Amino acid sequence: MAQKPSIPKGTRDFSPNEMARRNYIFDTIKSVFRLYGYQQIETPAMENLSTLMGKYGEEGDKLLFKILNSGDFMKSVGEEELAERNLVKLTNKLCEKGLRYDLTVPFARFVVQYRGQLQMPFKRYQIQPVWRADRPQKGRYREFYQCDADVVGSDSLWNEIELLSMIDMVFSRLKVRVAIKINNRKILTGIAEIIGEADKIVDITVAIDKIDKIGIDNVNEELRSKGLSEEAIERLRPLLEMNGSNEEKLTTLSTLLAESETGMKGVEELRTVVEGFDSLGHNCVADIDVSLARGLNYYTGTIIEVKALDVQIGSITGGGRYDNLTGVFGMPGLSGVGISFGADRIYDVLNQLNLYPEDVAESVKVLFVNFGEKEAAAAAKTVKILREEGVAAELYPDVAKMKKQMGFADSESIPYVAIIGETELQEGKVNLKDMATGKQETLTPEELVEKLKNA
Amino acid sequence: MAQKPSIPKGTRDFSPNEMARRNYIFDTIKSVFRLYGYQQIETPAMENLSTLMGKYGEEGDKLLFKILNSGDFMKSVGEEELAERNLVKLTNKLCEKGLRYDLTVPFARFVVQYRGQLQMPFKRYQIQPVWRADRPQKGRYREFYQCDADVVGSDSLWNEIELLSMIDMVFSRLKVRVAIKINNRKILTGIAEIIGEADKIVDITVAIDKIDKIGIDNVNEELRSKGLSEEAIERLRPLLEMNGSNEEKLTTLSTLLAESETGMKGVEELRTVVEGFDSLGHNCVADIDVSLARGLNYYTGTIIEVKALDVQIGSITGGGRYDNLTGVFGMPGLSGVGISFGADRIYDVLNQLNLYPEDVAESVKVLFVNFGEKEAAAAAKTVKILREEGVAAELYPDVAKMKKQMGFADSESIPYVAIIGETELQEGKVNLKDMATGKQETLTPEELVEKLKNA
Repeated sequence: MAQKPSIPKGTRDFSPNEMARRNYIFDTIKSVFRLYGYQQIETPAMENLSTLMGKYGEEGDKLLFKILNSGDFMKSVGEEELAERNLVKLTNKLCEKGLRYDLTVPFARFVVQYRGQLQMPFKRYQIQPVWRADRPQKGRYREFYQCDADVVGSDSLWNEIELLSMIDMVFSRLKVRVAIKINNRKILTGIAEIIGEADKIVDITVAIDKIDKIGIDNVNEELRSKGLSEEAIERLRPLLEMNGSNEEKLTTLSTLLAESETGMKGVEELRTVVEGFDSLGHNCVADIDVSLARGLNYYTGTIIEVKALDVQIGSITGGGRYDNLTGVFGMPGLSGVGISFGADRIYDVLNQLNLYPEDVAESVKVLFVNFGEKEAAAAAKTVKILREEGVAAELYPDVAKMKKQMGFADSESIPYVAIIGETELQEGKVNLKDMATGKQETLTPEELVEKLKNA
Repeated sequence: MAQKPSIPKGTRDFSPNEMARRNYIFDTIKSVFRLYGYQQIETPAMENLSTLMGKYGEEGDKLLFKILNSGDFMKSVGEEELAERNLVKLTNKLCEKGLRYDLTVPFARFVVQYRGQLQMPFKRYQIQPVWRADRPQKGRYREFYQCDADVVGSDSLWNEIELLSMIDMVFSRLKVRVAIKINNRKILTGIAEIIGEADKIVDITVAIDKIDKIGIDNVNEELRSKGLSEEAIERLRPLLEMNGSNEEKLTTLSTLLAESETGMKGVEELRTVVEGFDSLGHNCVADIDVSLARGLNYYTGTIIEVKALDVQIGSITGGGRYDNLTGVFGMPGLSGVGISFGADRIYDVLNQLNLYPEDVAESVKVLFVNFGEKEAAAAAKTVKILREEGVAAELYPDVAKMKKQMGFADSESIPYVAIIGETELQEGKVNLKDMATGKQETLTPEELVEKLKNA
């Protein structure tokens, strides 16, 4: 009967300690989202497979977790289909629902479904888990949280500036030093046009996106293998080797992309966003990086990526503008821009740098030792007052050895232990021990409340 | 290509307005859990089916949502099994994982899995969705949240008193008037013994649990149909007709159950809990109700149920003590007690009585109108200062007609609109309109910040 309990591979339990740290991150992100007027929505974990399938490519379809239909799931499966053992066909018969793969497709579905009731521009945030049947490995999970903020129904570049400002505030509050990289899809299009290889834009962006990892020579090698002419590769070089300030880069781009209307539009957009962001004054800098591509087929304007400066890790936040998110659900022409905070990677960064507030995992401020019926009854009264005053407090529920109760306070990192023994009971007082310094003092209940409220 | 988007039946999307109201409830419950020293954990949405199956009865097994195995899910399905079309056998072959059905079984699994690392008593809370393939109907969903708080590893009745106190604080803060009903499983056992029908305890408790709904005559009829003797039914009557204060009921019970050791133990436990709760002074009253049973086979001591006084609805919170939660996972002898807040029903109650704070759905405190590039740039600077000072604020991103922007503020219930037009720009001031009163005043940015921080 007894089973050795475990959880599915690629999933995680979160202990109180881990939850406290994760909540610190989520609460920080949420509070910033709210200051910026983003409003929360939630969508169901299960979506119809018709909503999810075909949105993430063929590989994505395979990575969707599918839910077996309830009741007689074999009802509509014919003998021939069984004999054939065609997995795709069988899946369609056995399953109608799947687990959310990201927050973007459910958001697009949401916008279209409630379009009549939504006030545009609609600024929403959403923090929920997503599921992917990826092969689990270090840092890659089958269940993980996404934290997305998007605004749809506005073309204004103020939205981009605001998203950058939001990134700045989140990481300032988390005390993580970051670099923001920024680009514009129209500049990538302009580059492809200007080097005479407009039709190879996908190959070009996929290749140059790797420049940080593999270097310019290997990028050029890859471009050659994709059939780019030597002339095109030579014309590309100054763009990839471009450096200096944002202002210098924008000037260079204006010159190099002068012949491409789309390219020049991209330069103008990029200038507006970067200058707008700078003019407001922020802690971190947005650096123009024309090699930045991120899911090219998705973004149509601004592209944003954030990296931590003090930890070797992939991008910890990313986003951009898309112009046809809702088209697939029959609502074309709605422009949107958004960012997604990578909660799990941010968690790794904060863990590595130990950037949590000291009391992040504090369960309660004070534990009352339990010496027996009468003493506990008096303690319970004081505990109740403390809680009403907003001080987290608890009474050790069992009458146990002093050593055990102190050990409990210690292992739970409870900063104060309160003692109501026989003497204190008679005097109507409380003995309070500061667990860090070992200092003890005898206080009236009122003094105790006052002290712990400010501790 | 275009699909009319929808979500699976029995599931829900939550709009910003609904989320604000739900967050108000969840945040209230969470803040109370924390004041009492309960610490949060989270478990994965997917559990191994071996963890879930057999824990909720045969009917429950059918109501589990099962996840189709990834990859070649037909691999281990033999020809004979296919031909046979045995759903149970096929499910076992096709699926290894299922969605969480409640928070209790995952918690039990968690406690056993990490028993070496957990400090006892372990007080945990958990607020996560659960999924059930129930037939959807009004007020019953296939995805809904549970809010559980449990303490394991302590037999002390202080835990019960604390849980009652927590119920009191949650509903006091939510301004919902409630009645707490309380019973003890040992009293039910005692009753069955005393009327000479110990072996019929399940039938007896199932029947008397319905007394509020169907009345004593129908309860007796049901008991007769289950084979209870007329004598037993007569001996039961005074117990069911018992009324008066808790003290009077405890006295009556002590007399009537004097011959049952278990029954008398139950009376003592009940007295300790009720008197302990009363002695601390609370807003709501815990009333003894010996007909209260709730999932009898589960609870072994205290049984708790909460009903709203001003809305006709089922129980909105419930719980009790169980002595063998972890036995099925190979860890016997661990006692626990817990309660579960029914978030969806509490949401219904607050909606019906309109008990939300006035500003619950407020997105931002102030919207800055966008009159064009220069004005917007000045507005963006003030918006940034407001946000840094903790005031949620936004700039309308697009240059649109005044009427449209004011209409946006109105439909989003934004209490203030700030205007920086040509005049204000020259004077370095902001014109602020109170949307409720229509009153306008011209302020310096510093005055504006001060005013809105306190608004």
